[in-house]
Amino acid sequence: MPDTKPHANGERVLADLHALRALGAYKTGVHKPTFSEPHRQSLDWLVRKLPDAGLTGAIDGIGNIVGKSAKPGPKLLAGSHLESQNYAGWLDGPLGVVYALEAARVLNADPSVKGAVEVAAWVDEEGHFGSFLGSRSYVGQVGEAEIDTARDRTNGRAMRDALADMGLAGRPRIASEPGRHIGYLEAHIEQGDTLESGKLAIGVVTSIVGIWQYRITFTGEQNHAGTTRMAVRKDAGLALAKFCVAIDEQFPAACGPRTVWTTGRITLDPGAPSIIPGGAEMLFQIRDDDPSVIARLEQLLDTMADEVSARGPCTVIVEKIRTGAPAMMNAGFQDAIEAASKALAGGRSLRMPSGAGHDAQMLATVMPAGMLFVPSIGGISHHWTENTDDADIVTGAQVFVDACRRILAR
Amino acid sequence: MPDTKPHANGERVLADLHALRALGAYKTGVHKPTFSEPHRQSLDWLVRKLPDAGLTGAIDGIGNIVGKSAKPGPKLLAGSHLESQNYAGWLDGPLGVVYALEAARVLNADPSVKGAVEVAAWVDEEGHFGSFLGSRSYVGQVGEAEIDTARDRTNGRAMRDALADMGLAGRPRIASEPGRHIGYLEAHIEQGDTLESGKLAIGVVTSIVGIWQYRITFTGEQNHAGTTRMAVRKDAGLALAKFCVAIDEQFPAACGPRTVWTTGRITLDPGAPSIIPGGAEMLFQIRDDDPSVIARLEQLLDTMADEVSARGPCTVIVEKIRTGAPAMMNAGFQDAIEAASKALAGGRSLRMPSGAGHDAQMLATVMPAGMLFVPSIGGISHHWTENTDDADIVTGAQVFVDACRRILAR
Repeated sequence: MPDTKPHANGERVLADLHALRALGAYKTGVHKPTFSEPHRQSLDWLVRKLPDAGLTGAIDGIGNIVGKSAKPGPKLLAGSHLESQNYAGWLDGPLGVVYALEAARVLNADPSVKGAVEVAAWVDEEGHFGSFLGSRSYVGQVGEAEIDTARDRTNGRAMRDALADMGLAGRPRIASEPGRHIGYLEAHIEQGDTLESGKLAIGVVTSIVGIWQYRITFTGEQNHAGTTRMAVRKDAGLALAKFCVAIDEQFPAACGPRTVWTTGRITLDPGAPSIIPGGAEMLFQIRDDDPSVIARLEQLLDTMADEVSARGPCTVIVEKIRTGAPAMMNAGFQDAIEAASKALAGGRSLRMPSGAGHDAQMLATVMPAGMLFVPSIGGISHHWTENTDDADIVTGAQVFVDACRRILAR
Repeated sequence: MPDTKPHANGERVLADLHALRALGAYKTGVHKPTFSEPHRQSLDWLVRKLPDAGLTGAIDGIGNIVGKSAKPGPKLLAGSHLESQNYAGWLDGPLGVVYALEAARVLNADPSVKGAVEVAAWVDEEGHFGSFLGSRSYVGQVGEAEIDTARDRTNGRAMRDALADMGLAGRPRIASEPGRHIGYLEAHIEQGDTLESGKLAIGVVTSIVGIWQYRITFTGEQNHAGTTRMAVRKDAGLALAKFCVAIDEQFPAACGPRTVWTTGRITLDPGAPSIIPGGAEMLFQIRDDDPSVIARLEQLLDTMADEVSARGPCTVIVEKIRTGAPAMMNAGFQDAIEAASKALAGGRSLRMPSGAGHDAQMLATVMPAGMLFVPSIGGISHHWTENTDDADIVTGAQVFVDACRRILAR
């Protein structure tokens, strides 16, 4: 039978993405931090678009937007975020919001579709003020105290002040309604090079890795860099360097097939050219979707630290500062995305985990969740050169809308 | 023959040191940064003490004091500095100034001594505004442009403003007079543990090491810490850590018997926990009194950097940012200090290099120079717990004055 179902309108999707790109444009990307003027304009833009999709909604007390449908039948929540990292790309976030809007426009007006897609834009996924504040607020993980202490990491501005300037002070926050949604679906750029190198169009996300963060502190003895003989030194910076090399040598034998680990920051104390550092600190993180792998690597870290401290001359302390929350994506949703890819993307899809955190991780704590990736050119993200070909954007939108259709039909 | 020569007055030396210690006292040390109020008071204190030593002098246009004698005969210059590091010790600098003052008081008034000791306090040896500004100014190495751009490293204050506040704006700067002095002698705390561990009283300084400084830069590729597979990473921080370990492994076979090397500061770029560093930088220094050892180690550094860059995935650049200026101490002055130690310190002296830079290094570029060390308890310096026993302070003064007498007599 010929396929007579309405599909995503590629031109409309691209026009919407370009309309959002124009708000806060920076070179070929956008500078659209949370609660900046371009972000406010983008939120207003989305609120204005909701009625055409058969939805009603407004900005809530923390900056979230959830458009609701009065159509009878199952409800599928879909969305992403509208703000950006500083001086970053045009698609990270808006892609998922526009795909959700397109799915709502196509499916909500289709009488052959039971139920509707409801569209969400979660505030501050990019963490200018906190960590996934919008999606966490929706699922009940954010108390007033957290908002009270939240500050813009770039300029220290209090979130309460920013909310007041947005005219949101005192407005209630939308919370998820248990049982309302059959699930949540989010589309996002891959932010890696797997799809591009495999010449694929769609990533079917299997899981979202958890991020475990550690502060590793080395203690030696501060001393004069000229008058202290090499043999008596307790150089905390050298101890840190040796530990980094040891991690690089020992982790591969103990990690999982897709574990990643990173030392993002190193600080020596006092950090002066002519003083042997008596202290050193590294911020270290491990990502995986399997907590048993993490447990194994944490044990290895502790063993390594104990050996270093016993051997001397410096001592090492490993302190966990954040426990990861991996999220498994719903199997049925993965099947739906894969089937849609077969039908509309020539089957050019791949099941893969997400190495980056996403709002879907938070939604997954209260409902079945799924994610779809489109390719990132050069694997680049969080930079104004971030991009995806128009053809891949359009294909992604078509697969996304069809996946939503399939999920609503089950 | 009994020794009827006047010696140093230990009580007077200790009283002077305690008078200076009271200006800017911080716990058991002092907080006396260059051109702070306590520093100004200390400079005024010295100017008032000069006449009792048969000297005349005032603070010059950069903050130096050089007391001059009208007594006929050879002139021996002696001194050190009066300011301190932030929240540091009471003896680093003042010991040498007070020993010089004592030598002037004892010898200038002694008719059996031909010639005189002239006393100097060099400004900013501790480098709040620049590098050995006072002694370098005296030997002609500081132009007006350098003073124009000099700023306090703690608070950014312009040196010109500080000089104006001191009432020194427009005042001329004293310059060394070729031929006036037979040499320069400086006493200083050792700032290391060699004398203390050997239960010795006097260090006869043979040379002052040069300090060679390098900026070593690593270039990789910045990327997302979650979505970038380990196999494709170009982590500049990891490359830096490996290089530090390689230096630790390879330098000992190539260095001299007393070479020291130190990495004092490490910076990752961008330095964020969730971003693989695309850049990394280390500030590295090597100290030795033998330029041929330095040349050998520089060649080793370059070879190591070339190998890393060739092997990848990151590239390394070694940039020399400061060339060391080692200074050999005058052999005759060393003999005089050693002879004085035999006579007055039971021979408990040791010939040793200075691993720290000193004003004597700058004076050595225009006249013969010598240095004498007294023990540092625990090898501690640049900290308010810095200390030397009273007995060692007094012994040091007696040896210093006697060494000056011997040098003037040759």
